[in-house]
Amino acid sequence: MEKSCIFPDFPHFLHGGDYNPDQWQKYPEILEEDMRLFKLANCNSVSVGIFAWAALEPEEGKFDFSFLDKAMDDIYANGGRVILATPSGARPAWMAQKYPEVMRVDESRQRHWFGNRHNHCFTSPIYRQKVAEINGRLAERYKDHPALIAWHVSNEYSGSCHCDLCRAAFREWLKRKYGTLEALNDQWWTAFWAHTYTDWSQIDPPSPPMGDRAINGLRIDWLRFAADQTTDFFKNEIAPLRKFTPHIPVTANLMGFHTSVDYRVLAKELDFVSHDSYPEWKGTAADIRHASDHAARYDLNRSLKHKPFIQMESTPSNTNWKQFNKLKRPGMHMLSSMQILAHGSESVLYFQWRKSRGAAERFHGAVVDHVGHENTRVFRDVAEVGARLKKLEEILGTVTESRVAILYDWQNRWALDVAQGFQMSDKKVQKTLQDHYFALWRRGINVEIIGEEDDFSRYDLVIAPQLYMTSEKLIGKIADYVRDGGEMLCTYMLGMVNENDRCHLGGFPGGKLKEVFGIWNEEIDTLYPEDSNRVEWRGKSYRAFDYCELLHAEGAETLAVYGEDFYAGMPAITAHPYGKGKAYYVAFRGEDEFLYDFIGSLLEERGIVSDFDGALPYGVTAHSRTDGETVYVFLQNFTAQPQETETSRVWRTVEDGEPVSGRIALAPYGTLILARKPGEPG
Amino acid sequence: MEKSCIFPDFPHFLHGGDYNPDQWQKYPEILEEDMRLFKLANCNSVSVGIFAWAALEPEEGKFDFSFLDKAMDDIYANGGRVILATPSGARPAWMAQKYPEVMRVDESRQRHWFGNRHNHCFTSPIYRQKVAEINGRLAERYKDHPALIAWHVSNEYSGSCHCDLCRAAFREWLKRKYGTLEALNDQWWTAFWAHTYTDWSQIDPPSPPMGDRAINGLRIDWLRFAADQTTDFFKNEIAPLRKFTPHIPVTANLMGFHTSVDYRVLAKELDFVSHDSYPEWKGTAADIRHASDHAARYDLNRSLKHKPFIQMESTPSNTNWKQFNKLKRPGMHMLSSMQILAHGSESVLYFQWRKSRGAAERFHGAVVDHVGHENTRVFRDVAEVGARLKKLEEILGTVTESRVAILYDWQNRWALDVAQGFQMSDKKVQKTLQDHYFALWRRGINVEIIGEEDDFSRYDLVIAPQLYMTSEKLIGKIADYVRDGGEMLCTYMLGMVNENDRCHLGGFPGGKLKEVFGIWNEEIDTLYPEDSNRVEWRGKSYRAFDYCELLHAEGAETLAVYGEDFYAGMPAITAHPYGKGKAYYVAFRGEDEFLYDFIGSLLEERGIVSDFDGALPYGVTAHSRTDGETVYVFLQNFTAQPQETETSRVWRTVEDGEPVSGRIALAPYGTLILARKPGEPG
Amino acid sequence: MEKSCIFPDFPHFLHGGDYNPDQWQKYPEILEEDMRLFKLANCNSVSVGIFAWAALEPEEGKFDFSFLDKAMDDIYANGGRVILATPSGARPAWMAQKYPEVMRVDESRQRHWFGNRHNHCFTSPIYRQKVAEINGRLAERYKDHPALIAWHVSNEYSGSCHCDLCRAAFREWLKRKYGTLEALNDQWWTAFWAHTYTDWSQIDPPSPPMGDRAINGLRIDWLRFAADQTTDFFKNEIAPLRKFTPHIPVTANLMGFHTSVDYRVLAKELDFVSHDSYPEWKGTAADIRHASDHAARYDLNRSLKHKPFIQMESTPSNTNWKQFNKLKRPGMHMLSSMQILAHGSESVLYFQWRKSRGAAERFHGAVVDHVGHENTRVFRDVAEVGARLKKLEEILGTVTESRVAILYDWQNRWALDVAQGFQMSDKKVQKTLQDHYFALWRRGINVEIIGEEDDFSRYDLVIAPQLYMTSEKLIGKIADYVRDGGEMLCTYMLGMVNENDRCHLGGFPGGKLKEVFGIWNEEIDTLYPEDSNRVEWRGKSYRAFDYCELLHAEGAETLAVYGEDFYAGMPAITAHPYGKGKAYYVAFRGEDEFLYDFIGSLLEERGIVSDFDGALPYGVTAHSRTDGETVYVFLQNFTAQPQETETSRVWRTVEDGEPVSGRIALAPYGTLILARKPGEPG
Repeated sequence: MEKSCIFPDFPHFLHGGDYNPDQWQKYPEILEEDMRLFKLANCNSVSVGIFAWAALEPEEGKFDFSFLDKAMDDIYANGGRVILATPSGARPAWMAQKYPEVMRVDESRQRHWFGNRHNHCFTSPIYRQKVAEINGRLAERYKDHPALIAWHVSNEYSGSCHCDLCRAAFREWLKRKYGTLEALNDQWWTAFWAHTYTDWSQIDPPSPPMGDRAINGLRIDWLRFAADQTTDFFKNEIAPLRKFTPHIPVTANLMGFHTSVDYRVLAKELDFVSHDSYPEWKGTAADIRHASDHAARYDLNRSLKHKPFIQMESTPSNTNWKQFNKLKRPGMHMLSSMQILAHGSESVLYFQWRKSRGAAERFHGAVVDHVGHENTRVFRDVAEVGARLKKLEEILGTVTESRVAILYDWQNRWALDVAQGFQMSDKKVQKTLQDHYFALWRRGINVEIIGEEDDFSRYDLVIAPQLYMTSEKLIGKIADYVRDGGEMLCTYMLGMVNENDRCHLGGFPGGKLKEVFGIWNEEIDTLYPEDSNRVEWRGKSYRAFDYCELLHAEGAETLAVYGEDFYAGMPAITAHPYGKGKAYYVAFRGEDEFLYDFIGSLLEERGIVSDFDGALPYGVTAHSRTDGETVYVFLQNFTAQPQETETSRVWRTVEDGEPVSGRIALAPYGTLILARKPGEPG
Repeated sequence: MEKSCIFPDFPHFLHGGDYNPDQWQKYPEILEEDMRLFKLANCNSVSVGIFAWAALEPEEGKFDFSFLDKAMDDIYANGGRVILATPSGARPAWMAQKYPEVMRVDESRQRHWFGNRHNHCFTSPIYRQKVAEINGRLAERYKDHPALIAWHVSNEYSGSCHCDLCRAAFREWLKRKYGTLEALNDQWWTAFWAHTYTDWSQIDPPSPPMGDRAINGLRIDWLRFAADQTTDFFKNEIAPLRKFTPHIPVTANLMGFHTSVDYRVLAKELDFVSHDSYPEWKGTAADIRHASDHAARYDLNRSLKHKPFIQMESTPSNTNWKQFNKLKRPGMHMLSSMQILAHGSESVLYFQWRKSRGAAERFHGAVVDHVGHENTRVFRDVAEVGARLKKLEEILGTVTESRVAILYDWQNRWALDVAQGFQMSDKKVQKTLQDHYFALWRRGINVEIIGEEDDFSRYDLVIAPQLYMTSEKLIGKIADYVRDGGEMLCTYMLGMVNENDRCHLGGFPGGKLKEVFGIWNEEIDTLYPEDSNRVEWRGKSYRAFDYCELLHAEGAETLAVYGEDFYAGMPAITAHPYGKGKAYYVAFRGEDEFLYDFIGSLLEERGIVSDFDGALPYGVTAHSRTDGETVYVFLQNFTAQPQETETSRVWRTVEDGEPVSGRIALAPYGTLILARKPGEPG
Repeated sequence: MEKSCIFPDFPHFLHGGDYNPDQWQKYPEILEEDMRLFKLANCNSVSVGIFAWAALEPEEGKFDFSFLDKAMDDIYANGGRVILATPSGARPAWMAQKYPEVMRVDESRQRHWFGNRHNHCFTSPIYRQKVAEINGRLAERYKDHPALIAWHVSNEYSGSCHCDLCRAAFREWLKRKYGTLEALNDQWWTAFWAHTYTDWSQIDPPSPPMGDRAINGLRIDWLRFAADQTTDFFKNEIAPLRKFTPHIPVTANLMGFHTSVDYRVLAKELDFVSHDSYPEWKGTAADIRHASDHAARYDLNRSLKHKPFIQMESTPSNTNWKQFNKLKRPGMHMLSSMQILAHGSESVLYFQWRKSRGAAERFHGAVVDHVGHENTRVFRDVAEVGARLKKLEEILGTVTESRVAILYDWQNRWALDVAQGFQMSDKKVQKTLQDHYFALWRRGINVEIIGEEDDFSRYDLVIAPQLYMTSEKLIGKIADYVRDGGEMLCTYMLGMVNENDRCHLGGFPGGKLKEVFGIWNEEIDTLYPEDSNRVEWRGKSYRAFDYCELLHAEGAETLAVYGEDFYAGMPAITAHPYGKGKAYYVAFRGEDEFLYDFIGSLLEERGIVSDFDGALPYGVTAHSRTDGETVYVFLQNFTAQPQETETSRVWRTVEDGEPVSGRIALAPYGTLILARKPGEPG
């Protein structure tokens, strides 16, 4: 395996962040000071121009690149590189005033007026044209600038627009998908409540406050359309970039499990993924689970393209937009920064370089505070991360190898989110995924978080909690995967509807899944929060809550049964050999300890182990990267207490090359980055 | 007394439910299977066509009755009968598109667009015309069909519309009611906040978000208008039915204490009442009170026309639209079904026969699940109810005799709901009624829940909690009732306003009520949730909460006084002989145990006893029906434990004719249906 | 000092309230009875006409003053006086119908329709003209009426309007303030998110639901504009009053810490302040803190013009618009009425004289209930207050002397309320002020609550909690005050932004404040509700919560340090001599006991003591007024228990002239009003 990093011409972990010289054009002394501090902070890169449209095009057709010319030159002169942003995340006031169509229309069909950000129409021809023009000018101007290493396209794409143009585009999208109204009516089951459409023009986006919310197929397709339209808008954004700078990779900064855009659709168009990461560290034991939840986000990002990504945003200290904006405790910034590296990042980047002087985000953490100098706790924390990154460069270009995957599809989640039934207001799809992930995280197992279009055969174990929406294609894929030797773990709600949210007939799980899993799920009991059941497995009793399915083993082996209620004795866990593989089914929502133990047994069955051989105390974990020869293990302590483990192997520390073996002490919030070649003795 | 059931030509308890063959027209094998399962489930009737307008009239003026022809024929061929629905609960997309006026306008005067259901304008001439036309075609086509036994008009009428047409109709309604603006201004007390109207066109419906919410008379009258307009719409619906099928009775399915329609107004136009019933059984001790609360709903339905009604909807298993949709525990479906019979139903009908394949209600319980066959727990539960119903047919046509009535008027409730004062957000009118009802339910006493236009003299005891709104006419009626020998129990808030929500002057309770009750209520103390007082009565101390009136006995006997706070020693319960009768007053909100004991003493005073003579353990109750000779007692156990009681009489079981006497064991969730002729020995 | 009361020609404490004869024109017997009761209740004044526009001008241009003529004459004939209201708080229906522009437009730019009150546009030329006309007619008609003693202008001004006229006026206001768009863009920091304005017409009011919420400067300026526009509207209202009745003082009834109007701006235009006071007495120990919180409101009112004010509204019993509307306990009405006198009121006035018969406020407490006679508990309570007021007239015209001031500016509060950061949803500015106030209230210290334009040098100690927004001018003023000998106590969040909500650069607190306080505040830790720290001071340990700043003493003396967390040992309290004065800084939010002790030490340092020398048990306090010679102390017991204290001086009771010395017993809810001349022995 040859190491290949995202920016081969700049083979360093990126360190830096969002830089807004457009806000400080009247403060030349501050722009100058920025450069001094840039080096002091051990930074090597910035993102520029993210919301700079008003500066770049102060009047329609009148452009002014002076601040940007200077920033590009200054950064380069100081040894740095620039990720250049397209400015479409917000538009100038003159544009909203002259072309109201660029502003978004909400689900009540009210057009919002100028203000805020991330609120433009994705369809508007004028907005697309304006975006293409400014992007083209940026690309043409800086195509040969040596500082330019990547494009940061727009910012945190999200949401959708209900304007006439979008509604028309939605209808066209539906025509392409279904061909005939008859097919659409059939899939959406519009005979229900007399919703049958007899003309395409009768179809409107769902609108819980003012229009339809009864047709689930409509709701899912609208969300799909919005994702497609976002991606189409993205393609319009990058066309001029591709033209002028075919050598420069493009990305868009994503937000983890953010629900309004299907990132799997968007990610196909990106050259690499970038991620905005804002964990909320509380300084308590709750940080352990929180670390795992964020690790899942990072793995999701890495898995979108199955390769390293960059962290585009994080805060060097506090946020300012959460309900409580607590300071990061000493050591936490390093721990948090090293964690994202452990999961595949090639950067530690911040929002923001310097706190703005006014408006919404001025109290958000930054490398440089309003005080303006380097003598702050936060600045020192940042500089320390920068210094460490330099010592870790041998890790650059390494990848993550995973034998375990968890299936997470946006469309399955949407379908459950809008489904009427079960626990109405929250099916907890994301939390449930993270519950399963936590069982693996605690064991130091690398995980990919994949979509249904990914190749399952790359994994020994695929876990798919609450896989409610299953097309015939996906059902076939699962069957093939297991038949060919894979191990699959599915849970309650498996296989209830097809890709258009229409129920499978003939019993759940739908179609061939019954055969693969050897079960029939007759009913699903939704429990009240105060209810619970018990399941005993391998001599230990676990709490079951929220959902308990009334399962029949039809071929499967019953591994455990319910201990209580009228379905006591019915199967709660089953296993079913199918072809060369095995299909496990868990019919209830179980407590963390159950998932830890049960998933542990599956790992054991498949011989899947952590790359770190020592015991992992609660709150300590280990994740690894590799270049195919050397294994790099990030051993991290997410507790505020010192922790210990013991290895039977011989490692070296990456930074210093010191040998490590036997007992290992971890400082509170400490990270040890260890390397070894598995072939070597020890 | 001659027994007369609702469908004398089909003298069976109806068993079946909402059947939607319009959704399955492309699945002939499923329509065929439906008939096999229909018989297997011991069903004998269905409701058809409730939301079938798009199927019946796929294009404007083009009708297609084929699916309905087949359904009517199929059901009849299988020995069943059909309750045929008019489809106005939802309209086809083409109609909303071509005639936007059919869609409802909300209180912010925004017209909603196509989607959902139950959201049409009640005034729109076009909608009324379209409804009349489709209803007429249905009636004409099926008038002689032997399957047709009743009309199910529209579905769950509710809500109101604020369109220009409705606003104009409201003004006309007001003109008819008040004659002059002067009279209206006077009753509504519009001099307050300079609201005096000088032209009818100045009057608009209340609108908390955008318009007026200060004038209580306006708010009450708007709700009355909406009820009247709903009823007027109903009359338009049934005109063609009356024309073509004068022999077929009509109903509308009601929803118990649903607040947006005054069912007493609508019920006058119905031939019989039907009820949609969705108790939320939790499988805990909370089910006991819940059973009582639903019994009150059933009694309300029966009392609307003082005769048996049918259950039009219920779920054979779970719902899908509550926050938590738990399965019914084994036995609960039978218990719940028998309960509504105990309170006067002549049917057990379900929403829905078969789960739809898509859209909002596909996960709602049904006789036939997506699995499609009969081998499910739910199907067996349904078939068992059907089998039992057949054995109970001697009960058909019997009635309920009640010596006790509780007064519940929609308009009184509305007035309290919108009253500024007391506990602002919830006066708990319905809960308070149900608290009083529970005291009677636990004692196995039959109750009617009557309105102020009903004949009080039919009852020995009339209970009227929180009877805040009292017209002069009602005051006179109460006085007459008591004077002529009736016993009346009233509570805090009695007689504060007239029928237009204008306060009585001269002290509360208003007018002659002071004389009838012999009291003056000087002030009403509203307590915080954490506050309470105590009232000792007959040597037992009870908690008083929420409301404590500072009462003066002016002629009445003081039965109990407050034990605490600055009004300790003031009367809390009074009794006042008036004419041949007696008027009781309870000045505070008391705990359940108080109501149980105190109402028990009133029953004892009047010699009112349950038709079942045995003791009723907590959670066990008994309600009866009679044909004038034989008394049928439904002895029901709403607990998950076995229970026991003992009778000193000799009964027989209705199903098997087995003699029952002495100790009686009740299974968990068990129902025993006993009969005896009171004249007989035992 | 010469005593001068607000109404020198009617030298009595006003006692009476809102009188609405316009509602009872058809009830002459009630109007007559009102006069009998007026005298019986020991009343001497009323407010009339507050919402009487529909009565005064039933048709456009047709006026009818008959009811008002009669009311003015009747009251005068009974020895009373009238505060005459202008009716602009609500407009007649005909006006809203004919001139929709008078109705307010909300932040979603929806014009509300007729109804409610307090919802007119402050800019509408038509409304201003109509108001000027009716006000002029009232003034001209009654200018010589001997009953007229003051003008009650409109009612409880509040809110703002987003109509086109208001938006245009806002832009003009901005032009006047900033001169150029460049200056505005600079202060508002609009480069952020590309918000730079290039034309004044691009600026719209903030609108969280539909428009901008990102620019803090915009939000603050909009609130300032609304306050200015309200005041401008007020000036339009009083122009005709000044013309016809230059001898009659004008007021507007204010609502304490109400946030939508900056009362310091409005108060400049008032001749005297009046206050609407609605404490929510619970009858529990919570009443103690509640009494202090309301004392702060009264002091705020008095401080607006540094002279006595009147209570314009209060309830003689319960309210009807709170969530729970509990009765006042016996004694509480007297205690509450005496309290506002203790803090500078020259009246006890009620909303309302008589309960209206219908509409929103009919269940609000009143002197005369629906029962209509005087034999009620509430009537007796009112009459008793009236009788006592007559005996206290020697106190009339006395003033309050305070050596301590707390700084409270509406604009600072707005800035914190809309700031993104810290605890997002509530910075608790008002509560924090009241926390500090409570420490003084418990010690019986008179306090003024001043604004940043007030003269600080009048006070020995100025306390300014959370003084986040500091203009250069204010910074200079603070520096001067301390330098010249003042003592200042500031807290966390001091000096972060300028008057346009733009951050100070160079470290917090901004500018010269660092020098005055001798500190640098590096970071602010926002704690979760479950978090806390500890600060030990003078051997006692206190809880710190919500906010803990990471402070550096740069010249200041560290009085206490944090006991926990990573900033243990950093300064938590500092003191810094500056010039002749001293600047204290508290870096954390502390519990009440800390504020009580710490502020106590500052009082001690300055020799500030209560005018009452005895110990004050918890719940007992003493506040004073003086004519420059005699000191009048209101010794009040806000507990439901008897309390005791002891004085070493000799006092006399004001009502009876009885000597008081040594041990003093206070009845539950009791008030003792004591007088002495400090020069006298004892």
